[in-house]
Formats: sequence, C-alpha cells, structure tokens
Amino acid sequence: MSTVSAPATPTARVGIVGGGQLARMSQAAAIALDVELHVLDAAGAPAAAAGAQLIEGSWESLDDLARLAADVDVVTFDHEFADREALQELARRGVVIRPHPDVKRLAQDKLHMRRTLGDQLGLPVPAFAEVHEAADVEAFAQANGWPVVLKTITGGYDGKGVQVVDTPREAAETIAAFGAPVLAEALVGIDLELSAIVARAAGTGEVRAYPVVETLQVDGICNEVVLPARVDPVIAARADALALELAEAIGLEGLLAVELFVSDGELLINELAMRPHNSGHVTLNGCLTSQFEQHLRAVLGWPLGATRAVAPAAAMVNVLGPADGSDPGDRIAAALHVEGAHVHLYGKAPRPGRKLGHVTALGPDGDAALESARAAAAILEGER
Amino acid sequence: MSTVSAPATPTARVGIVGGGQLARMSQAAAIALDVELHVLDAAGAPAAAAGAQLIEGSWESLDDLARLAADVDVVTFDHEFADREALQELARRGVVIRPHPDVKRLAQDKLHMRRTLGDQLGLPVPAFAEVHEAADVEAFAQANGWPVVLKTITGGYDGKGVQVVDTPREAAETIAAFGAPVLAEALVGIDLELSAIVARAAGTGEVRAYPVVETLQVDGICNEVVLPARVDPVIAARADALALELAEAIGLEGLLAVELFVSDGELLINELAMRPHNSGHVTLNGCLTSQFEQHLRAVLGWPLGATRAVAPAAAMVNVLGPADGSDPGDRIAAALHVEGAHVHLYGKAPRPGRKLGHVTALGPDGDAALESARAAAAILEGER
Repeated sequence: MSTVSAPATPTARVGIVGGGQLARMSQAAAIALDVELHVLDAAGAPAAAAGAQLIEGSWESLDDLARLAADVDVVTFDHEFADREALQELARRGVVIRPHPDVKRLAQDKLHMRRTLGDQLGLPVPAFAEVHEAADVEAFAQANGWPVVLKTITGGYDGKGVQVVDTPREAAETIAAFGAPVLAEALVGIDLELSAIVARAAGTGEVRAYPVVETLQVDGICNEVVLPARVDPVIAARADALALELAEAIGLEGLLAVELFVSDGELLINELAMRPHNSGHVTLNGCLTSQFEQHLRAVLGWPLGATRAVAPAAAMVNVLGPADGSDPGDRIAAALHVEGAHVHLYGKAPRPGRKLGHVTALGPDGDAALESARAAAAILEGER
Repeated sequence: MSTVSAPATPTARVGIVGGGQLARMSQAAAIALDVELHVLDAAGAPAAAAGAQLIEGSWESLDDLARLAADVDVVTFDHEFADREALQELARRGVVIRPHPDVKRLAQDKLHMRRTLGDQLGLPVPAFAEVHEAADVEAFAQANGWPVVLKTITGGYDGKGVQVVDTPREAAETIAAFGAPVLAEALVGIDLELSAIVARAAGTGEVRAYPVVETLQVDGICNEVVLPARVDPVIAARADALALELAEAIGLEGLLAVELFVSDGELLINELAMRPHNSGHVTLNGCLTSQFEQHLRAVLGWPLGATRAVAPAAAMVNVLGPADGSDPGDRIAAALHVEGAHVHLYGKAPRPGRKLGHVTALGPDGDAALESARAAAAILEGER
C-alpha cells in the first residue's frame, strides 16, 4: 500500500493557458494518464483547486506565458484570450504550442476565420463583411437585408460581443460601443444549432469525430446539449465531415468544436473553438473517451480514444448561479436523487448567471436524457 | 471565463486515511462533485500528487489521525491499516468515521470477521479456527484435512500473510514467523473467485450492488477482473444478495467488497474490504458510476449512483512494475494504440512487481474485453 515513495515521473507535462473549468475537468483526465498539468491563471483558479500546478500570472504577458512554457512539454488552451503576439513570439523561440498560434488565430479573430473558411477554403459561412461605420452596414444590408448581426472581431464569448441591429442608427451605436472594425453578418434563419467536435493528433494527424450534438442556446450561451443531435443523420454526417475536413485543412493539433447553424436544411459554420468546449461536456459521461482526455491525447501526439456513445442518447444542462446568490453546491445531495444524473461542479463562487457547473444524463432517447439532466440542474439552481 | 474568483466553498470535505492509488482515483471523482479530499500519508503520496490536500503523518498515530479529522466532515479509508485503538478514540471524541471503527474491524481482523460472519450471522465461510501452536493445527487438520491455510489475523494483503502448510512442522514454522495467534482455514477447492461490491449510504441506508465480477488471481493478487463474472447468473445473484445482506447486517457506511470463492457450486466468503477495491477498478470506465464516486456518495450520506454496466462486458488488468525496473508510463502512447483501452497510472515510482496502474477495456463479451485490456497492459509492462 502507500508508503514513502521515491519521486515518480509524470508521463508528460502540459501547460494550459487559463485555469478555468475546462482545465479543471482536464485535471480529472490527467490523473488517470499521470499527466502533470500546469495552468496559467490567477490565484483561486478552479483547475488549481483541483490539483493542477498554478503558475500565477496573466495570459496577456509574454513573461508569464514564458514561465508557463518553461516546465512543460506542450502548451495548450482553456480559452481564446491569450495575447496573440506573445504566443507568436513563444512559438518563434521554439515553444511547442498546440494548436499553433497561426491556427489558434482562427478561433480568436472572427474576421480572419470568416475569410479563411469562407473565401479560402470554400466552406459554408453566413454572408459577412468587415465594417467600419454605419454606411458600411447599410451597404451590407442592401445586399443581405436587415437585420444585420454585428460582432466584435476578437474577445466575444457566450453571447457577449454580439448585437443584432435593425437600422443604420443602431449600427452606428453598436460600432461605437464595440470599436471599429466590426464583423457584419447576415442574420440567417436557424432551424437548429449543432456542434461537431473532432480531434486531430499532433504528429500523426490521426483524426476522430464525436457524434454530432445539438445545442440549445439561451441568451447566446450554449445551455443544453443533446447527443446525438435530433436531426437527419445525413446532416449530422455532413457536419462531422465538414469539421474533419476543416481540422485537416488548417493542420489542427488538438480539439476543435465547430458550431453550426442548420438553415433551410443547409449547414453554415457559426463559430470555432480550439479546446474542450461547453457543447462537449456531454462526452464526459456519454462517450467512451471524454473530450478532456481526447484533447490531452491530441496535443501530446498520442493515439486518440474511441468516441462512441455509451448509451442511445445523452444530454447536458448547464448549472447557472441562481438570482438569489445561493450556491448550487449546497443542493448537490438533492440533485443526485435524480436517477442517472451526473453532477459536475466547477468550484467557483456563486454569482447570479455565472456558469457554476453542469449535469449530464443518459437515456433511451434525447428527450428522456434531457429531462433527467434538466431535473437535476433545476434542483441545483434552487428551482424545485 | 476564468478571472480572479471569490473563494469558493466545496460541497464537502472528506478525510482519507492513506493517500495511495485508491485515494488518488477518488480525487478524480471528487473534482466533479467539488468535494475536497484530505489524505493522511507521507510526502509524495499518489493522491497528493493528484491534488488532494496532504496531511503528512502516520495512520498509527492518534495525533496525526486527529489532525486529519479536524478539518473534514467525515473520515474514511484508503486501506485497512489504521490503528484501531486510535480510531475508536476518535469516534469516542465525536469524529464521524465511516465505516465506523467497530464495523471496519471486520476488514482489519480476519478472526473477528470469521467469527462474526460465520458464527453470528450464519454466512458461508470456510472452516476456521484460532491456532496458537502446531498441535492446534493438527487438531484442525484432523477435522478438515491437510493442507491447512494459515493467515495472519491482521495486516495481510495481496497474498502477504498467507501460507499453505502440509505438515505440523510447516505449521510450527509459519506460526513462529507470523506470531501467534494465527487463523487456520480449510483449503477449499476453488472453481472461480468472485467479488461482489456493494455500497450502503450513511443515514439513509440506501444500498446498491454492482454487477458481480470475476477475479483472476496471480500469487494472491487480484490481477485481472471480468465484469460481469462468467458464471451461472444464479450464483452471481446470490453473491450480490449475500453482500447486500452483509452490508445491512453490519450497518456498513461506504463501499464493501466481498471476495468470494465458488467451491463445488457453493459460495464461500474469503475476504472483506471496506473501501474502493482493486476488483472494482473495472467500474471506472465500465459502469455508470465508478466505485470511487460511489464510496464518496455513501460516506457523505448522499444518494447512490446507478451501477449498471455501459457495455456488455468490461475487463481490468493490473500493470505491475517490470523486472527491468523500467517505467510503464514511458510506454503509455504505445498502449493507447489498443482500441478501447483506458490506461490508469498511479503516479508511483517503478519497482519490480509493484502495482503501478491498471488498464480497463469494454467489449462484446468478457473474453474480448480481457484480451484488449491484457494487450495494453502487456505493452505498458514492456512485454510487447
């Protein structure tokens, strides 16, 4: 049994830019693989509380990023916010960053992403334009109609940095608020939103796709997920094919989530994330290999894991901080009464509307799985 | 995303006596539930490297056990070695220990276990006797035949503290080596070995059984596990019924593994463990709720999780330190090439014969799952 040990050597050391809930859930996967995680974040970051080594600092600082990189085999990401110039400089110094900063830029810079995917790769994206002032938006609307969606080119997430405008006046206000230039997009009719998650391993180029999931958004946040998506299997297969094609075209190393609209039966690429993604939390109890383990394997150049589902269907529902400021963690025992519900809490202090955790559940079909996950999430949020 | 957080409060704090691989795998489960684990062990313990809070000290010391207990809601176990008197004293002081030291004694004191299970509860155990000298063994052998199995009453594990003797002379030598008194048992013919793992929740008394597993022993170590056991389903059901009956009879709080012999079609109880058990590692990828999460839920008095298997069959194979002293972790990428194999490493320095990890795999039947797990384990051990 356990007695004093000689020092053990981890199989690998992975540095993560950011120590939020994604890095925290990666820590659980890292334990099994004996991978040592180092995270760059502020004190109290959720991943550090779970056992990752904390490098206290800022992802805007080249020096701090260099400290993260110093002791690890590969640097990867918990989010999209790292300073791009600093990442490029590290890559020039020989730091192994996966995905490479040039590739990661596609998830950081929406205009660059639209141009690369739409104009260069010929993949389906909504009509878009770079706009600097209201007159540009008016011109775009003449071709594509009002309303127009305006987005910050960098930094947006969870519905932040997105505004739908109906008039030149609203466009002017939004551009002033966001700061020019801004990305203008046609507002498309959405039948359904999907997320196709694929991994591509460094070195070998091995690729694997998860079953395509359906995402149900509330206020721009992916709030609920159903696996597999309740959609024509042909569309689901095309979504996975598109994500795999994209991963190969850009030379991805790691995990890629492609958020897609189904619009009049056609797929349109909405957003990209190159890291574990909220829509992939359902893989944690729903698939043979979780997205967190898969991302670690991919950036380490290890063989990828099997992605198939362990049940006919699975669902994920976010747990948000209740309006009364109470802590969902105080209601965990009640939530676990829901048969088959798996509760995942992020170790974050409660604040109204803040993502504090999620629930997954399996079921004979998507509706049943979603019902179980919703029931447990509602208890955690104090609604039952 | 992750910015500086106000301090978050875990859902619960659990103290574990021992910070070995069982506590380490519990840490992965604890992350999702936002449970904070504290482990009492020496520096470098595998669970501490995975993120559990280390209380440096000895489980033989009342003071150290009291330090562990000071900051947690409940104290539980990674092994059977804690000092019994010290645990009793802590319980008298009002520390919540689950299972209670009086119950835990059944897993620490083999003679007490045999008397309670065999004589008091009327459960099937091999013929046994307390022996002090060779003459006692001879008398026992007259009734039950040679050879006789001699066991240390406390402290044995993984085949240590067990000796099969054929003559009074060998009996005398073993008693001298073990120190009297010793437990004598009839050597029974073994068709198959099973392990029935059940949980009983503190407070509510809710019980759940896992599918009974088959254990394949090498040198007294449970080296391979197949879930479900390849045995007459009637026998499997009787094994689970027996484990549930036992858990209720003794007022168990936590997880109980009952190791059983199938002898001439009848079940005999061999050993008990009251904690996650090597034979239950297969639940980690094989069942909806792992034994590690289940044990935490049970000792916290939370609802128990669903125990059903996620595939027709699953298997587990230990990874032992190779004779050449090499580190299986160096071969993890090769092992992950085995489709469907899940590798779990314990973060322990390699030593020949030391348990350093395990592999699980799912399959359409037990043979196929075992073949996958064996293939990956063999790679890790450097045999392929």
